[in-house]
Amino acid sequence: MTLLPKSSSYESMAEPFHCDFRDRLFIGHLANHMLNAADFHSTERGYGMRYLRSIGKTWVLSRLSVEVGEMPTAGSSFSVETWVESAMRSFTHRNFAIRAADGGHVYGYGRSIWAMIDTGTRQPADILAVHGGLINEYADPERPCPIKPFRRVKFSSRLVAVLDVQTGYSDVDLNGHVNSVKYIEHLLDAIPIDFYRSHRISRLDIAYTTECHGGDLLRIYKEELLPTDFGLSLRRQTADGNETEACYARLAFVADV
Amino acid sequence: MTLLPKSSSYESMAEPFHCDFRDRLFIGHLANHMLNAADFHSTERGYGMRYLRSIGKTWVLSRLSVEVGEMPTAGSSFSVETWVESAMRSFTHRNFAIRAADGGHVYGYGRSIWAMIDTGTRQPADILAVHGGLINEYADPERPCPIKPFRRVKFSSRLVAVLDVQTGYSDVDLNGHVNSVKYIEHLLDAIPIDFYRSHRISRLDIAYTTECHGGDLLRIYKEELLPTDFGLSLRRQTADGNETEACYARLAFVADV
Repeated sequence: MTLLPKSSSYESMAEPFHCDFRDRLFIGHLANHMLNAADFHSTERGYGMRYLRSIGKTWVLSRLSVEVGEMPTAGSSFSVETWVESAMRSFTHRNFAIRAADGGHVYGYGRSIWAMIDTGTRQPADILAVHGGLINEYADPERPCPIKPFRRVKFSSRLVAVLDVQTGYSDVDLNGHVNSVKYIEHLLDAIPIDFYRSHRISRLDIAYTTECHGGDLLRIYKEELLPTDFGLSLRRQTADGNETEACYARLAFVADV
Repeated sequence: MTLLPKSSSYESMAEPFHCDFRDRLFIGHLANHMLNAADFHSTERGYGMRYLRSIGKTWVLSRLSVEVGEMPTAGSSFSVETWVESAMRSFTHRNFAIRAADGGHVYGYGRSIWAMIDTGTRQPADILAVHGGLINEYADPERPCPIKPFRRVKFSSRLVAVLDVQTGYSDVDLNGHVNSVKYIEHLLDAIPIDFYRSHRISRLDIAYTTECHGGDLLRIYKEELLPTDFGLSLRRQTADGNETEACYARLAFVADV
């Protein structure tokens, strides 16, 4: 079997309705393009979502970090390059570079961590058992990704509830779970719109912890870590009045008037 | 100046995160592809959004109807063809055909009505004054669009409030208004998710009446016109406790277990 190159690039356009009121691609839509690139890249190499489903396994996104110097504006073309940094027993590290379509200008970079699970038991599956560890032929541990690893968030008593979200039909993907991109959209909406008039996002770190379903009521909590840096915790409200964290995130901004 | 053909087609793929829990493209995302096609088609012919802005005018979507026999599933390619049916002083009728990428199989058709307005006064502008009425060279009134024109909705006293939506950063486009596709998403969420387990959308008619801004609180009202046919009215809540209708829609379903 002939091996493909370790990385591949996929081109996209920043569509007008995928851009914010300052004409820049929403970071949720950028994340969507990154997740698509991950899917194309793994499918081309024999361990994509569709093949995994056929053997009772699937990829689950666990962590995503995106750091951008600027964002593509409406109508501009950009490419998302992706490669696997390393694959362990049940986790893989996958990185991204986002560039202008001419191949020169870099918009930013991304890091992600994916788990492989058994779709029956929902327990971790052995990545290296798929095609005899083929994924390791594509791992590129020497290639640098020039952004820091995922940043955890430690919440304090200053965490306050800021937004309730009633999920519905539009939130849910093929697996019946609220989709990874929709969580990002809801988290962005927990920051007042006026803040975006004078700031742009420089970095997003998001950790997906438990799954939510369409119809779940979500409550978003926010803590100001720095004047331009927010910790966010999104929690599913359960019928007995308790809460379960579905994901948490850190959103860093820079002033940009 | 050489004229282009009257219609053009644009290819897209149904991305996994743009598909619902039954693996079918969300009708809001289909509408997004139709609006993109309208933008590409008008831009290529000299009266696109960007050019209009430079002369103090813009297109405003007034009505959209989409009728589909089925929907593209995740990963499948499809094309959106669009053409102008007619152009009057300040309104134009634009139609759509949505097909499988091989050019044969038809998913459905669309109709739309656009107003041209002056961006300063927000009053209707004269479409035929742009490039000496060039748009009429492209109008194709003889070409049939095999779906019925826009269907109005007459609400009765059976209309009831079903969902409140707090708009935010993710809702708003470059003009500072809640974008046309987001309205569709919110309206779809006013139908209980369980209904979508046994029904699929066969037709959407939506009329955009007044503009909303990010931060506005919206309330969605629903009336069952038939067991599979719903009228929806989306109303902005004003500070004085009053309401203004932002858009209304009719969503028709067919049983599909």
